[in-house]
Amino acid sequence: MQKINPLNPIELFRVIPLEILKRKKSSKAKFNLMPGSLMYTGEIKMDKVKMTAIIYNGDTFEEITLEDVADLKEVNSADKVLWLNVAGLHDVELIREIGEHFDIHNLSLEDALNLSQRPKWEEYDDYFFQVCKMVRQEKEKIAHEQFSMVVGKNFMVTFQEDDKDNFNSVRERIKSYKGKIRLRGADYLAFALLDVIVDHYLIVTELYGDRLDDLEDELNDNPKQAFIDRLSTMKKELNWLRRTTRPLKESVINFNKSQTPLIEKRTSPFLKDLLDHVTHLTENVELYMDEQKDLMDHYNNKMNNKLNDILKVLTIFSVVFIPLTFMAGIYGMNFDNFPELHYKYAYPIFWGAIITVASGMIYYFKRKGWL
Amino acid sequence: MQKINPLNPIELFRVIPLEILKRKKSSKAKFNLMPGSLMYTGEIKMDKVKMTAIIYNGDTFEEITLEDVADLKEVNSADKVLWLNVAGLHDVELIREIGEHFDIHNLSLEDALNLSQRPKWEEYDDYFFQVCKMVRQEKEKIAHEQFSMVVGKNFMVTFQEDDKDNFNSVRERIKSYKGKIRLRGADYLAFALLDVIVDHYLIVTELYGDRLDDLEDELNDNPKQAFIDRLSTMKKELNWLRRTTRPLKESVINFNKSQTPLIEKRTSPFLKDLLDHVTHLTENVELYMDEQKDLMDHYNNKMNNKLNDILKVLTIFSVVFIPLTFMAGIYGMNFDNFPELHYKYAYPIFWGAIITVASGMIYYFKRKGWL
Amino acid sequence: MQKINPLNPIELFRVIPLEILKRKKSSKAKFNLMPGSLMYTGEIKMDKVKMTAIIYNGDTFEEITLEDVADLKEVNSADKVLWLNVAGLHDVELIREIGEHFDIHNLSLEDALNLSQRPKWEEYDDYFFQVCKMVRQEKEKIAHEQFSMVVGKNFMVTFQEDDKDNFNSVRERIKSYKGKIRLRGADYLAFALLDVIVDHYLIVTELYGDRLDDLEDELNDNPKQAFIDRLSTMKKELNWLRRTTRPLKESVINFNKSQTPLIEKRTSPFLKDLLDHVTHLTENVELYMDEQKDLMDHYNNKMNNKLNDILKVLTIFSVVFIPLTFMAGIYGMNFDNFPELHYKYAYPIFWGAIITVASGMIYYFKRKGWL
Amino acid sequence: MQKINPLNPIELFRVIPLEILKRKKSSKAKFNLMPGSLMYTGEIKMDKVKMTAIIYNGDTFEEITLEDVADLKEVNSADKVLWLNVAGLHDVELIREIGEHFDIHNLSLEDALNLSQRPKWEEYDDYFFQVCKMVRQEKEKIAHEQFSMVVGKNFMVTFQEDDKDNFNSVRERIKSYKGKIRLRGADYLAFALLDVIVDHYLIVTELYGDRLDDLEDELNDNPKQAFIDRLSTMKKELNWLRRTTRPLKESVINFNKSQTPLIEKRTSPFLKDLLDHVTHLTENVELYMDEQKDLMDHYNNKMNNKLNDILKVLTIFSVVFIPLTFMAGIYGMNFDNFPELHYKYAYPIFWGAIITVASGMIYYFKRKGWL
Amino acid sequence: MQKINPLNPIELFRVIPLEILKRKKSSKAKFNLMPGSLMYTGEIKMDKVKMTAIIYNGDTFEEITLEDVADLKEVNSADKVLWLNVAGLHDVELIREIGEHFDIHNLSLEDALNLSQRPKWEEYDDYFFQVCKMVRQEKEKIAHEQFSMVVGKNFMVTFQEDDKDNFNSVRERIKSYKGKIRLRGADYLAFALLDVIVDHYLIVTELYGDRLDDLEDELNDNPKQAFIDRLSTMKKELNWLRRTTRPLKESVINFNKSQTPLIEKRTSPFLKDLLDHVTHLTENVELYMDEQKDLMDHYNNKMNNKLNDILKVLTIFSVVFIPLTFMAGIYGMNFDNFPELHYKYAYPIFWGAIITVASGMIYYFKRKGWL
Repeated sequence: MQKINPLNPIELFRVIPLEILKRKKSSKAKFNLMPGSLMYTGEIKMDKVKMTAIIYNGDTFEEITLEDVADLKEVNSADKVLWLNVAGLHDVELIREIGEHFDIHNLSLEDALNLSQRPKWEEYDDYFFQVCKMVRQEKEKIAHEQFSMVVGKNFMVTFQEDDKDNFNSVRERIKSYKGKIRLRGADYLAFALLDVIVDHYLIVTELYGDRLDDLEDELNDNPKQAFIDRLSTMKKELNWLRRTTRPLKESVINFNKSQTPLIEKRTSPFLKDLLDHVTHLTENVELYMDEQKDLMDHYNNKMNNKLNDILKVLTIFSVVFIPLTFMAGIYGMNFDNFPELHYKYAYPIFWGAIITVASGMIYYFKRKGWL
Repeated sequence: MQKINPLNPIELFRVIPLEILKRKKSSKAKFNLMPGSLMYTGEIKMDKVKMTAIIYNGDTFEEITLEDVADLKEVNSADKVLWLNVAGLHDVELIREIGEHFDIHNLSLEDALNLSQRPKWEEYDDYFFQVCKMVRQEKEKIAHEQFSMVVGKNFMVTFQEDDKDNFNSVRERIKSYKGKIRLRGADYLAFALLDVIVDHYLIVTELYGDRLDDLEDELNDNPKQAFIDRLSTMKKELNWLRRTTRPLKESVINFNKSQTPLIEKRTSPFLKDLLDHVTHLTENVELYMDEQKDLMDHYNNKMNNKLNDILKVLTIFSVVFIPLTFMAGIYGMNFDNFPELHYKYAYPIFWGAIITVASGMIYYFKRKGWL
Repeated sequence: MQKINPLNPIELFRVIPLEILKRKKSSKAKFNLMPGSLMYTGEIKMDKVKMTAIIYNGDTFEEITLEDVADLKEVNSADKVLWLNVAGLHDVELIREIGEHFDIHNLSLEDALNLSQRPKWEEYDDYFFQVCKMVRQEKEKIAHEQFSMVVGKNFMVTFQEDDKDNFNSVRERIKSYKGKIRLRGADYLAFALLDVIVDHYLIVTELYGDRLDDLEDELNDNPKQAFIDRLSTMKKELNWLRRTTRPLKESVINFNKSQTPLIEKRTSPFLKDLLDHVTHLTENVELYMDEQKDLMDHYNNKMNNKLNDILKVLTIFSVVFIPLTFMAGIYGMNFDNFPELHYKYAYPIFWGAIITVASGMIYYFKRKGWL
Repeated sequence: MQKINPLNPIELFRVIPLEILKRKKSSKAKFNLMPGSLMYTGEIKMDKVKMTAIIYNGDTFEEITLEDVADLKEVNSADKVLWLNVAGLHDVELIREIGEHFDIHNLSLEDALNLSQRPKWEEYDDYFFQVCKMVRQEKEKIAHEQFSMVVGKNFMVTFQEDDKDNFNSVRERIKSYKGKIRLRGADYLAFALLDVIVDHYLIVTELYGDRLDDLEDELNDNPKQAFIDRLSTMKKELNWLRRTTRPLKESVINFNKSQTPLIEKRTSPFLKDLLDHVTHLTENVELYMDEQKDLMDHYNNKMNNKLNDILKVLTIFSVVFIPLTFMAGIYGMNFDNFPELHYKYAYPIFWGAIITVASGMIYYFKRKGWL
Repeated sequence: MQKINPLNPIELFRVIPLEILKRKKSSKAKFNLMPGSLMYTGEIKMDKVKMTAIIYNGDTFEEITLEDVADLKEVNSADKVLWLNVAGLHDVELIREIGEHFDIHNLSLEDALNLSQRPKWEEYDDYFFQVCKMVRQEKEKIAHEQFSMVVGKNFMVTFQEDDKDNFNSVRERIKSYKGKIRLRGADYLAFALLDVIVDHYLIVTELYGDRLDDLEDELNDNPKQAFIDRLSTMKKELNWLRRTTRPLKESVINFNKSQTPLIEKRTSPFLKDLLDHVTHLTENVELYMDEQKDLMDHYNNKMNNKLNDILKVLTIFSVVFIPLTFMAGIYGMNFDNFPELHYKYAYPIFWGAIITVASGMIYYFKRKGWL
C-alpha cells in the first residue's frame, strides 16, 4: 500500500476534502422534478462518457470499449457474464438508452445519478440494484465517488462519476483467471466489487486510527492550540464516514437476506463474509469516534487542571503577600506616639517578623496539601 | 427555485413562524366532544370553501369547480380517476356531506379537521387515509398547512386549509400528460402528492443547512450576543420539524407495508422511493440538530476559553504587582533606624530591584507556559 | 372549559397535589397478604358505597340506584347493556359479592382496590379488565382517582374511589341518545370512558404547556429565586404524569391488539383513534419534559453568564487600580535622595501618569474585547 | 410490619450489608472446574443441613423433618404435593443424592450452589428450575440469601443457605387451609413462594423511598458533609438491587411464557399478577435511582450556588475597597509641592470622598442586580 | 489459582499488554487480497507449526504428534472423536492442506488466520466454525491469543498462535476419563473448550474487580496524580474487554440457536449454561466500566471540592485583610491637619479597631457558614 506523502500539519487531518462534507447541500436543483426523472446534479469530471464492457466465462475473456449503446446487442450472450462499466454520469440520454436496453426501472437510474442518494440495496423483478459511495486513497488526498450497480441474470452494469476507480484488482483477477470469478455468475462479481469497496473504506478508516495515535502522543507532550481544531475536523470527517458506512451496512444486510434466485447458494458464505467486513468497518468508525471523544475529554481535563493549578498557585502567592503588605502599611503610619518606630532594632526585627509569617503560611499550605 | 429575500438578521432564523410552533396549544375547545364529532379548530383562511375536481384517465382530462356536493354525482365515473380538492376546512356541514358521498368514516373527517392531529396513515375497508402537515416556502416566509387525503378505488379527496398549495406541478403533469400519472390510478396520484410534500420539506430543511453554514462562519469570526439566541430559535424550529417529520416517516412506512388491494403492484417501487426520500429528510433533520448542538458546544467552549484567558492573564498581572507594591510599602515605613533610606543610590537601586523582580516573574510564568 | 382561578405564585405549579405524588409509598400494609386477597389501602372518601346502574339499548334507557347486590339479578338482561358503577372502594365485602355475581377473578378485584396498581389491560375468559388513574380539573385543584372496569358480554362494572367522576358527558350522551353509544355494546362504552379519561389527561397536560410559556416569559424578564423551585416542582409533576400515562398507553395498545370476541369489529377504528390520542398525550408529556429541561439549562446558562460577567468586570476593575496603587506607594517612600519628590510639578505630572496608565489599560481591554 | 430500630445516621443507609455488595468477587475458587461440578462457595451458616418435607393435598397435611435422603422414598406419593426444603448448601454429597432421587440435572444443582449465579428460570424435560436471591428485613439489618427451586410434576425442592427464610406465611397458609394452595399443584406453590420473595423485595425497596424522603428534607434544611457519602452509599445499594431484580423480572417473564405442561392453565392469571408485581418492583428501583440522581444534582447545584454567592459577595467587597486604598495611598505620598495636604478641611473632605465613592459603588452594584 | 506477583504500581494496571490494545491497526497488509486468500498477519511465535491429535471414544484414548497432514488419514475413524490442534498459524501451505483434508471452506481458514477477525460463530454445510480471542493469566502478564475451531461430525480442528493454551484441564479430563467428555461427541468437546475460554475471561475480569476495590480505598485516602492515569488505562483495557466479549456472547447465542444436526440434543443444557456464564462475563465488564466511571466522577468531584475549599478560604483570608490595610493606609496619610495622629493613645486604639474589625468579619463569615 502506498504511503501518504507528508502534508502540512493542519491539512494532515483533512483526509476527506471539504467539498465532500458539504456536497449534501448541493442538490436543490433536483427538487420539484417528477419521480423517475433523470438528472445529474454533480460536476462533470470527463468530456465523454466512457463505456467499457468485459465479457467472460470460464473459457473466454474479452474487454472492449463501446462507442454506442447499439453495440451492446452484439456483445450480449446467454452463457457469458457481461460487465458494462459506465464512467461519467452527465450524458443523461445515453444512460436512458442503457436503461432501456437492460430494462432498468427509471427510479434506479434516477438514484444512480443523484449524488445525494443514501446507500441502499434494492430488489426488482429482474435485477437487484446497489448504490453507495466509494472512497480511495489517491496520493495526497482521498478520492470519493458515487457508485451504483445493476445486477441481472448474466449481466452487471456499473455507474461511476470518473474513469478512475477501485476495481483494477478485480479486472486483473478476471483477466488472469485468478480466484473464482471466472467460474461464477454476475452475483459473485457484484460481491467482489462490494468487497473491494469495503476494503478501501477500511484503508481510509485506518488513517484515522494512525492519526488518533499521533494525536494521543501529542497530547501527552504539549498540545498546541491547533490541537482542538484538528480534533474538531476529525470529528466532522468521522461523522461523514459514519453517515456513509451505516446505510452501506444496511444495504449489505439486505443483500444477505434477499431470497432472489439471482443470487446462487454458493455465493452466500461470501456475502456473510462481506457483512462481517462491513460490520468490522462500522465498529472501527464507532471506535474511532469514541477515541476522538475520549481525547477531547482528556484535552479539556488537562487544560482545566492546568488553569486550576495556575489559579491555585497564584492565589496562594497573593495570600502570602497580603499580611506582609499590611505589616509594612502599619509602620508607614504617622502617629505621633508610635513607640516601635523608635526602637533601635525595629527594622531588623520587622524583617524577622516578615520572614516568620511568610514561612509559617507556606508551611501551613504545604501541610494542607495545597501546594 | 425562488430565493428567499434577505430579512433582518434575527428574523432570518425565524423561518417557521412562531404561531406554528405554538399552535399545539390551541385545541382545547375540542376536548369533551364525542369521538367522531366534526369540529374545525383553526382560523378561517378563506370566505367560502372551494371545491375543485380533476377527472382524468389516459384519454380525457377535465378540471371543474364545484358549487355543491350534489354535483359530484355527475362527475363520478368508474373508468376515470376523480381528484376532489377541498380548500378551507371551516364549513363542517359541507365536509360532512362530502364524507357521506364517498362513504368516509367520521373519525377520518374528524382527523382531517383537527389541526393538532399527528401525521398518520390508516387503512379502512374501502379507502386509505393520510393526514400530515405540508410546508412550503412563500416569498419571505414558510407557509404551513394541514393536509389530508382519502384515497379510494378510483377517487381521491384531499382537504387543506387554504387554496394555495404545493401541488401545482402535479396538476400540470396531469394536464400536460407528462410522466405516468394519467396512466395510473388514484394510488399513484396519492404517491405523487406525498412525494411533492416530502420535496418541500427537504427544501425547507435545506434552509437550515445553509444557515448552519452561515452560523459556523460567524462563529469563526466574532460571534455576537444574538448568536446564542439564534441558535436557540433554530433548535426550537428543528425540534418542530422533527416532531412533524418523524410521524410522517412512520405513516409512509405503513403505506409501504399495507396489503390493501387499492395499491397496485407497479406503484410499490415508487413507494419504496418515497420512503427513501422521507428517510433522507428525517436523517437531515437529525443531522442539523446534531450540528446545531455541536455549534452550541463549540460556542460555549469558545466563550469559556475566552473567560479563562482573561482571568489567567489578569491574575498573573495582579500577581506581578503584588511584591512590587509590598516593596514600595517597605520603604514607606517610618522607622527611626532605617539605614537603606539614607544610602545615596537607594532610589535607583530600588528601581533596579523592582525591574529585576518583575522580569524574573514574567520569565518564570512564560517558561511554565502560563502566559 | 372552566378557567383555573388565580392562585398564589408558588401554588400555581402544584397542579398535582403533593399527596398524589407521595401516595406510591403508602401501600405497605398490603405486603404479606395472600395473592387475590381483597384489601383497600386508601382513605375512605364517602360513607356508604354508592351503586348506580344504567341499563340501555337502542330502545330503552333506565338509571337506578341499587341498595343491594341482590337487586342486580332483576336488572340484568341479555339484550340490554348494563353499566354498574361502584363509587367507594372501602366496603370490601360488597365488592366481593359484586365479583361473585359477575364471576370476576379475585385478582382483578384485588387490582381494582390496590391504589398503587400500575395501569394495565388484561383479558380473562369472559371479560376484559382495565385499571388506571383518572385525573380531572376541579376548580382550583386537580382531582385524581383510581378507576377500573370489568367489561363482559353485555355488562360493564366500573370501580372508583369517589362519587364524582369524569363521565357525566358520557351519561348525558347515553340518556339523550347522542352519538352511537345506545346502538353499540359494552365494548364501545368501555372505549367511550377511556376516551374521556384520555381527554382529561390532555386538559391537565395542557396546563403545563401554558405554564411553561409563562415561565419562558419570566425567564426572558428577570427570573427570581423561586423560579428554580417551580421548575423542580414541575419536573416532579411531569414525571408523575409520565409514570401514569406510559402504562396507560401500553394498556390501550393491548386493548387494540386483543382478539377477544367481546370487542366488535366496528369498534376497532375507535380503538385506533383512542391509541392515537393517548400517543398524542404521551408525546406531549415528553415534549413538556424536554421543554422543562431546556428551560432549566437556559436558566443555568443565564445565571452562569451573569456570574462570569460580574467576575470579569470586577477583575478588570481591580487590575486597573493595581498599578495605580503601586505608583502611589512609590511616592510614599521615604528615601533621603528621592529627586522626583522635589520637582515643582511632580504632583500634577503624577496625576497625568495615573490617568494615562488607566486609560491605556481600559483602551487595551476594550480592543481585546474583554469589556 | 416491624419498624426498623433507629440506627446511627451513617449506618442508617447501609441497609444492605457491605459484604453482600462485595460477594460478587468471592467465587474465584470455582473457575477451572468441570461444567456440572458441585461446589459450594459461600460461608457455612449452619452445622448440619436441615431437610424439611411438607406433604399435602386437599385432604391431608403432614410436616416432617428428614434425616436421610432415603427417607424420601417413603413420603413421595403421586396424589400429594411434596415440598422438600433444604436449608444449608455446604453438604455437597447430600445435595447430589437429593438430585439423583428427583432426577435433577447436575447443571441445576451447580447453579443452586453457586452464590454468584444470575437469577434465571429454566425449563428441563421433567421439571423447571428457578434460582434467585431473596432478601428480608431482620430487625436492624437486611438478610440476604441464595434461593433456588426445582419444581416437578408433584414435588418441589427448594434450596437455601440458612434455616430462616421468607416463607413462614406460606407454610401457615398450607397448614391452616387458607387460600388456594391446598387445592392446587406444585406450580401454584412455586408461584406462591416467588410472590412472597417479590413482596419482601418491595418492602426493602420501600425503605429507600422513606430514606430518600428524609434526605430530601435534610437537603432543604442544611445538609452536612456526610450527606454526599450517604447518597453515594445509597447509589451502590440501589445498583445492587437493580442488578438483582432485573434478571428476576426476566426469569418471571420466562415463567409466564413457558408452555410446559407442568404449569396448569388456571395458574396463569396468578403468574401474570406476579409479573405485574415484579414490574412494579423494577420500576420502583429505577424511580428511586432517578430520585437519587436528582438529589445528587440538586445538592451539587446548591453547593455550587453557595460558593458562587460567597465569591460574588467577597469579590464585590474587595472591589469597593480597592479605590479607597488607592485614595489613602495618594495622600500618603511625600511630594514637596502637594497643595491638598495643607488645606484645613482636607481630612474631613477626604472622608467625605471615601464615603461617596463607596456608597456610589454599592448603589451601582445593587442597581445592576449584582448584590 | 496462582496469584499475580506484585508489580510496580503503574504497571499493575497494565494487565492487558499495550501491543494487544494496538494490534487492531496492524492488519493493513491484508487489504486488496482476494476473498478467501490465506495470509497470516501476526508475528511468528514458534519455529515450526505443531500438530497434536487426540483421538478418543468411551473405550480408547490416544495422543499423538503429527509431522505431516498425510498422517491424518491413518488416525481418522468414524467411531472416534478426533481433536486436531494446530499451534502456530504462519505455515499457510500446511493450513491449506488441513483445510482440504477436512473440506473446510477457504473463508473459514482466512478468518482463522486473520488476527483482527471479530469473534463469530458460523454454520456451514458439514461443520460449524467459531473464532474468538482467548486470554489467560501467565505469571506477571496476561497472554492473549487468536483461537478458532472447526467442528464436524466426529472431528474438531483448533487453530491457535502459540503452543501454550488454556486447555490443559480439558486434555486432562479426556485422558483421565473425568466428566462426560469421553462419552460425548465433538459438539460437547467444542462446548468444553468455550467454557474454559469463558472461565479464563472471568478470571482476568475479576482482576479488575480487585483493582477497582484497591483504587476505591486509595481514593478514600489521598489519591496521587498517577491515580487518574491508572483509571484512564483501566478504561482502555475494559473497553478492549468489552469489544472482545460482546461479539463472543453473540457467537454463543448463535451456537445456542443453531438447528444443525451436528449438535446433539443432550448438549443443549450445557450450551444454555455457557450462555449464562458469558452473560455473567459481559455484565461484569459493564459493571466494572460503570464502577470505573463512578470512580472517575468521584475523583473529579473530590478534586473540585478541594480546589473550591482552597479558593474559598483564601478569598476570605484576603477579604479580612483588605479593610485592615485600608485603615493602615489612612493613618499613613500626610495631611497637615490630621487630629487622630496626635492623640496619645491613637496607636493602641488603632490596634483595638483592627482586632475588632477582623474578629467581626470572621464571626460574620462563620455565622453565614462560609468558613
